[in-house]
Amino acid sequence: MRVIDLSADFRLDHETYAEWYGEHPFPEMLPAVYGLTELFRDEIAAAQLVANPGCYPTAALLALTPLRRFGLSDVIIDAKSGATGAGKTPSAGTHFCAIDSDIIAYGVNSHRHYPEIAAGLGTAGAAPTLTFVPHLMPLRRGIEETIYVRTQKLPSPDELQAAFAEQYAQDRFVELSEAPPEIKHVRHTNFCRIFATIDKRAGRIIVISVIDNLMKGASGQALQNMNVMFGLPEQQGLV
Amino acid sequence: MRVIDLSADFRLDHETYAEWYGEHPFPEMLPAVYGLTELFRDEIAAAQLVANPGCYPTAALLALTPLRRFGLSDVIIDAKSGATGAGKTPSAGTHFCAIDSDIIAYGVNSHRHYPEIAAGLGTAGAAPTLTFVPHLMPLRRGIEETIYVRTQKLPSPDELQAAFAEQYAQDRFVELSEAPPEIKHVRHTNFCRIFATIDKRAGRIIVISVIDNLMKGASGQALQNMNVMFGLPEQQGLV
Amino acid sequence: MRVIDLSADFRLDHETYAEWYGEHPFPEMLPAVYGLTELFRDEIAAAQLVANPGCYPTAALLALTPLRRFGLSDVIIDAKSGATGAGKTPSAGTHFCAIDSDIIAYGVNSHRHYPEIAAGLGTAGAAPTLTFVPHLMPLRRGIEETIYVRTQKLPSPDELQAAFAEQYAQDRFVELSEAPPEIKHVRHTNFCRIFATIDKRAGRIIVISVIDNLMKGASGQALQNMNVMFGLPEQQGLV
Amino acid sequence: MRVIDLSADFRLDHETYAEWYGEHPFPEMLPAVYGLTELFRDEIAAAQLVANPGCYPTAALLALTPLRRFGLSDVIIDAKSGATGAGKTPSAGTHFCAIDSDIIAYGVNSHRHYPEIAAGLGTAGAAPTLTFVPHLMPLRRGIEETIYVRTQKLPSPDELQAAFAEQYAQDRFVELSEAPPEIKHVRHTNFCRIFATIDKRAGRIIVISVIDNLMKGASGQALQNMNVMFGLPEQQGLV
Repeated sequence: MRVIDLSADFRLDHETYAEWYGEHPFPEMLPAVYGLTELFRDEIAAAQLVANPGCYPTAALLALTPLRRFGLSDVIIDAKSGATGAGKTPSAGTHFCAIDSDIIAYGVNSHRHYPEIAAGLGTAGAAPTLTFVPHLMPLRRGIEETIYVRTQKLPSPDELQAAFAEQYAQDRFVELSEAPPEIKHVRHTNFCRIFATIDKRAGRIIVISVIDNLMKGASGQALQNMNVMFGLPEQQGLV
Repeated sequence: MRVIDLSADFRLDHETYAEWYGEHPFPEMLPAVYGLTELFRDEIAAAQLVANPGCYPTAALLALTPLRRFGLSDVIIDAKSGATGAGKTPSAGTHFCAIDSDIIAYGVNSHRHYPEIAAGLGTAGAAPTLTFVPHLMPLRRGIEETIYVRTQKLPSPDELQAAFAEQYAQDRFVELSEAPPEIKHVRHTNFCRIFATIDKRAGRIIVISVIDNLMKGASGQALQNMNVMFGLPEQQGLV
Repeated sequence: MRVIDLSADFRLDHETYAEWYGEHPFPEMLPAVYGLTELFRDEIAAAQLVANPGCYPTAALLALTPLRRFGLSDVIIDAKSGATGAGKTPSAGTHFCAIDSDIIAYGVNSHRHYPEIAAGLGTAGAAPTLTFVPHLMPLRRGIEETIYVRTQKLPSPDELQAAFAEQYAQDRFVELSEAPPEIKHVRHTNFCRIFATIDKRAGRIIVISVIDNLMKGASGQALQNMNVMFGLPEQQGLV
Repeated sequence: MRVIDLSADFRLDHETYAEWYGEHPFPEMLPAVYGLTELFRDEIAAAQLVANPGCYPTAALLALTPLRRFGLSDVIIDAKSGATGAGKTPSAGTHFCAIDSDIIAYGVNSHRHYPEIAAGLGTAGAAPTLTFVPHLMPLRRGIEETIYVRTQKLPSPDELQAAFAEQYAQDRFVELSEAPPEIKHVRHTNFCRIFATIDKRAGRIIVISVIDNLMKGASGQALQNMNVMFGLPEQQGLV
């Protein structure tokens, strides 16, 4: 039996898991193959257990991976999520009147997607400093992340665009955009749409990434991984 | 000690209360003076116990009272309320994702404001047939009621406007409008804004009434009543 | 060439068109076959020119047609539409700040879907009195109509449910619901979902109908009609 | 005659104005006294012409000024504004359907509030690198800014809180918060609410600041300034 697990139970290595969640009952299973299809397609094809990524890490790692060639030195992720990301459980915080007409930062410094993003960025060379601040927005489906990056070498605009184009040349579900993308461009689809630009004044890169958190950020990506695991066309059953 | 009660505990007569809620522990106290200021100002001024009206009945009875002179025969209240009207308790039904981008009829035929509205309409002469359907809307504060009325005598347009103008000539917190009023006109205020027109084709009257359910529909009206009870200017502390 | 026209140009007969819009340049073409698939499937299959119905009339006529067997005598349609129904043209009335957190009645007594609904109800026997009040709601896609009906003979609850079940036994895109339906049940689909109940106190029927105005209320229904016209499975390309 | 100008016409010095807007017709009047009351109260009291600050700069400069004592070296402002900030003019971008259920970055690298914020930060010592990315949110009133700051000296948590407490000890309209503030805390008021924390992992400060853009970000602050100019209690007419 081959498993795609949508929970956060098998995404981290043993040590990091213990630090954020406590002891894991099956540490020898950690970490499973990380199911970010575009980055680990071959490993997923062969995997017994795939840990489907969290929604925030999906949008962040797709936005940041092309920049690793320039040497990531400092990363800030200002993330905004719709209310489906807050879970189904009714609470004071998910009441309509709490969320409507507001935007609320939460889990500053302590959100459990932090180590998942850090792990995805830091596995080769020096890890960058990383700040991740999620916000809850008055809409149901969708994530937007505006990401501020310093690299060891600041690319030219052409080098920046080339890095993204090369990285995702073969990837149907990642689209590059020439303007800041909007959630409505990807809602109800499995696409991640990414815009990257250079802030010359400050000497840094700004990347904006959007996904539907229920699709590319959850079940859509699980289906994409299933297709890969079973040798089916990657887009089968997906738009 | 003089009391203004915001609950529904003392608004109905004993018999009606028992039918909708069960036996009342203090039936001899029923009903208290009904705290719809514009209709019962003198009784409120002298009352020991005032039952502050429900939000839906406030908007409905202010809209319908001027028409009683024409003999109400059939009344339909299509009411729409923001989510503050659904109460503070977190539940599947008050989750942001349940309410956002939808409108949901509830309590069709069984909402507990029905007998309160019926009582307010039926105390003199033959009671009209009455239908009341509330809906939950994706906004926080405000009620809009579109009310369809048949009367024994259909007034002329001038008679219709005169009926409203006369009824509320002395009432600061009821405003007559020449176009369908919007919730934004009254939000955060104690005003009720009312539009009335004649549907000649169908031979009936359409009345549209808006209030802020937390103000004229609850605490604003309580303050208005307190002012009346203590001989203060009725608008003191209110906008 | 066979045409499915989404505009309102060919829906009415010559006389009614002239009353609401002025002289028609091609009166001999009026009216085209009315493209409410569930009601005129055979005519649509053979038609050269199909007039695709308006969004409000679609939801209304699907809700009301099963009741014609009881003799419609009085109909009130309290309709609520999302902002896509207000058109794409930017205006003061379609600005986010005008629509958000409000519900606004418009076109009271004068909306151009009135004659289209009236025509759909009145072709056999005495036409009922009809009132239609549309409202603009703070959401993008979807229509909800709460409809209040008096019939010459008030059916029993069983007769009421049987009328709907029989009418739509063969219709894939009409679903009957045992509770008030929500727009989220039909959004992004071609379905119309309908709830009907009897208000015993008032002696009338309440019907609630929801559609996605861009699908069953516009292009979805056009595709459904195209399938019928070309002998394809009616649901091809639709969900 | 003493003037409080709400436009952007007199906020910048001559050279910066020319760079962003073109030649100014009255360069000798530039810059006027900058009307951020908490920072320039004495100058405002004596001014003939006060340039009322922009909404984004108000929230940003109140959040950042207490940190100047630690030596600002790098500042990123991720700003989110409601639709009233997009102006009253109807356009494709302000249509309800464009804004609802989305969040949209705009003016990346080119928003005209950039030089106003830069001017407010850079007048003494070395100016920090500065990035400012505004986003349009699906709500009407309110601004939230999440601000990421590197300083020459990273303060301790106590030093950080003390810096804010000292800066605003006498300021009625600035409130310090122990948790991320929400727009609903300040909507319809002239308050700015600020939360500051240290991100130890990354070695930087995170500040979150909220205002009502129509009050403290516009007319509320204008009234506050008028009170200062005329020797009235600063909070007169304001909540």
